Amino acid sequence: MSDTVKYQLSEQDLPRTWYNIVSDLPEAPAPVLHPGTGQPITPDDLAPLFPMAVIEQEVSAERHIDIPGPVRDILRQWRPSPLYRARRLEQALDTPARIYYKYEGVSPAGSHKPNTAVAQAFYSKEEGVKRITTETGAGQWGSSLALAGSLFGLEIEVFMVKISYHQKPYRRAFMEAFGATCVASPSELTESGRAVLEAHPDSTGSLGIAISEAVEMAMQRDDTKYALGSVLNHVLLHQTVIGEEAIKQMEMAGDYPDVVIGCAGGGSNFGGLAFPFIGEKLRGGKDFRAIAVEPANCPTLTKGKYAFDFGDTASLTPLVKMHTLGASFVPPGFHAGGLRYHGMAPLVSQLTDLGVITPRAYPQLRCFQAGVQFAKAEGIVPAPETNHAIAAVIDEALRCKAEGRAETILFNLSGHGNFDMQAYTDYFAGKLYDQEYSEEDLAQALENLPQVAEG
Amino acid sequence: MSDTVKYQLSEQDLPRTWYNIVSDLPEAPAPVLHPGTGQPITPDDLAPLFPMAVIEQEVSAERHIDIPGPVRDILRQWRPSPLYRARRLEQALDTPARIYYKYEGVSPAGSHKPNTAVAQAFYSKEEGVKRITTETGAGQWGSSLALAGSLFGLEIEVFMVKISYHQKPYRRAFMEAFGATCVASPSELTESGRAVLEAHPDSTGSLGIAISEAVEMAMQRDDTKYALGSVLNHVLLHQTVIGEEAIKQMEMAGDYPDVVIGCAGGGSNFGGLAFPFIGEKLRGGKDFRAIAVEPANCPTLTKGKYAFDFGDTASLTPLVKMHTLGASFVPPGFHAGGLRYHGMAPLVSQLTDLGVITPRAYPQLRCFQAGVQFAKAEGIVPAPETNHAIAAVIDEALRCKAEGRAETILFNLSGHGNFDMQAYTDYFAGKLYDQEYSEEDLAQALENLPQVAEG
Repeated sequence: MSDTVKYQLSEQDLPRTWYNIVSDLPEAPAPVLHPGTGQPITPDDLAPLFPMAVIEQEVSAERHIDIPGPVRDILRQWRPSPLYRARRLEQALDTPARIYYKYEGVSPAGSHKPNTAVAQAFYSKEEGVKRITTETGAGQWGSSLALAGSLFGLEIEVFMVKISYHQKPYRRAFMEAFGATCVASPSELTESGRAVLEAHPDSTGSLGIAISEAVEMAMQRDDTKYALGSVLNHVLLHQTVIGEEAIKQMEMAGDYPDVVIGCAGGGSNFGGLAFPFIGEKLRGGKDFRAIAVEPANCPTLTKGKYAFDFGDTASLTPLVKMHTLGASFVPPGFHAGGLRYHGMAPLVSQLTDLGVITPRAYPQLRCFQAGVQFAKAEGIVPAPETNHAIAAVIDEALRCKAEGRAETILFNLSGHGNFDMQAYTDYFAGKLYDQEYSEEDLAQALENLPQVAEG
Repeated sequence: MSDTVKYQLSEQDLPRTWYNIVSDLPEAPAPVLHPGTGQPITPDDLAPLFPMAVIEQEVSAERHIDIPGPVRDILRQWRPSPLYRARRLEQALDTPARIYYKYEGVSPAGSHKPNTAVAQAFYSKEEGVKRITTETGAGQWGSSLALAGSLFGLEIEVFMVKISYHQKPYRRAFMEAFGATCVASPSELTESGRAVLEAHPDSTGSLGIAISEAVEMAMQRDDTKYALGSVLNHVLLHQTVIGEEAIKQMEMAGDYPDVVIGCAGGGSNFGGLAFPFIGEKLRGGKDFRAIAVEPANCPTLTKGKYAFDFGDTASLTPLVKMHTLGASFVPPGFHAGGLRYHGMAPLVSQLTDLGVITPRAYPQLRCFQAGVQFAKAEGIVPAPETNHAIAAVIDEALRCKAEGRAETILFNLSGHGNFDMQAYTDYFAGKLYDQEYSEEDLAQALENLPQVAEG
């Protein structure tokens, strides 16, 4: 039996700056457009929603942005996160490939999400904000912001997709343990929520609706801002601590990836790991493949359109150019709530459009099979979202075996599955199956995309 | 806001030996007696149950016992575990005390239990064993042995207390993800199980019954051994990595505890942290108080008798001298399944009898209140068992405040509460209350203790 090898950085190696990939892009990102006018948005337009420091990061082209001391002080509680060589998985697959994984499940919320939650809570606190609203689907993001809010003494109000609110009471209790308030969405608290309930009294909610409600609540109150857990540039920026650490850890291992893999829902865990490596490549460094893995029945990057779209259902958010299935697309049920979003981070979308990132889609059964194989070999039960990355890792490792190539594969183990055992219970009971999305619905949703004259 | 400070050892600081407190005891531990003859047991008597290497550790008086390389290779995956200074909790309590905690929730199973599970699985594998049986109540131990078994290629058969089996399907799925088999106990697979079911067809099981079943299954098969997750000397020995690391980490902090606190069910997380410090004290080192915290309605150390007793219900296990409430004592319901045992580690019992360890009992509502206060300050939701330690920590910190003393408090954050959110859900919903045990039942159970002529 070969042993797992851990590459553990010291506290001094915790990054002092975030890496901004905008600085290395061959062309500037498309502008963000005002939802009303369709014109490029100004920082003032965004001010009711986000702290000004975050807005500046959203549009910055600086390569390195300082991580504030109080943010680093909190990240230090679990960072630098470990990088492991998965020797036992390599052996189980009998592959010449070297497989490494960065483990973000060591955070108190169990995923990478606190990396940005802590930063966003800090900037809100600095600007005198009292309360942050947000949405959550499966609960990873809501938990992370609840945690960050408790550490900075901020009220956190989470609009939780109604079906999750009822199906995942444990996630709710976890958020409440940190003092956060959870509201089942659609709710009677907002115009957007009431409109949905009037039309569909039995609505079980969606991430798009919950975003509309959280945004509306933030806009109505001067002491309240809104926070998003993925998609936007500043969120991916905050996640680059993952890749910055991984670069040092791969150096410790005396190795460099030929393939970098992450699952992609909104794109933040993938971007967090891959962007610092992609930046090195764009500046003339070593070539490698970056693979973003999504669910086959919510195939934003592989089947969506690269176009301007809203982030929410009620068309309250700014318009961003991204890969999208259309805000009205509803994917069939599957057990990776964090990958159910209709859109994708504009930066991940642009790099996919440029051919720098290769997207790939897997059905859920294959992903759970891969996750269980990983658990048995490496001793960690991954989140259902992360299983998508692992399915691709295993396929790449088996390709290496077939081709007799000793490639280096690095992936992001973005979170553990402790809160997702219902999904595993269903999987073991044979109750999970692969539902295909309706081609017709997708075509319809793509037709409904907003008309924007690109400037 | 003060920041949490982390004391992180490097991989080189992972202990190379376990510390055996027997070497520093003022008098030798009482012998373990054969359940049939009442005479001191021989290694051969125990051989059907445990690997010989483990039996030797059980009776060893050597101060330091080498940790095998393959065991260290696996422990390295999450060890050395971090030690934190809980500055935010100190500030919330406005106490001059310095509070430190060792965090064992970083293991893949979420608690300290894998420290011994890995060692026991290793020794079984070395001796050609194919299968290990065990029991589990809340599921922490079963999960840890399932994890260890998957890493060493051993079959793991877990007898899970029937009420937990049905109430905690997520724990079951977690064990199954590692390839373990779970059986609801009492089962039809064993004589002990069938006897219980005949007398009480609706029995929801108990840890004592599950132990009987697991022991019986191991005794019946040559290729099968049994593993226990607490109580016995070798288990506490394996847990001393916690305290050995903590001694180095307190040195890094330039501090030394005035009070060491742990919750105590079978005694292994408490002993694991406290024994290396107690050893230093017994060898003439600095004085401090060691506080073992138990639930008020299963008060083994505070209300039990120090006497010979069986570890199980069916009187299959050897007799050990320990604090016990009597194997027939059934505590009222409460949400810390890991602290529901009628007995206590003989070594913790002996040190309590000697006055070296001070026991203390808390009702569960006070413990959940303490746990939520800790979560809000430090960002980690603790296991219900661990909340008992935290209640005592908070009381000690408030005493320090009242007395104006800047004492140093160290405790073991033995596990996170990710799998225990039902307990928190009930707590927030006001559905938890403090049930007192029946004095009459306790008196009866103590009267039923086996008659042993001490030799």
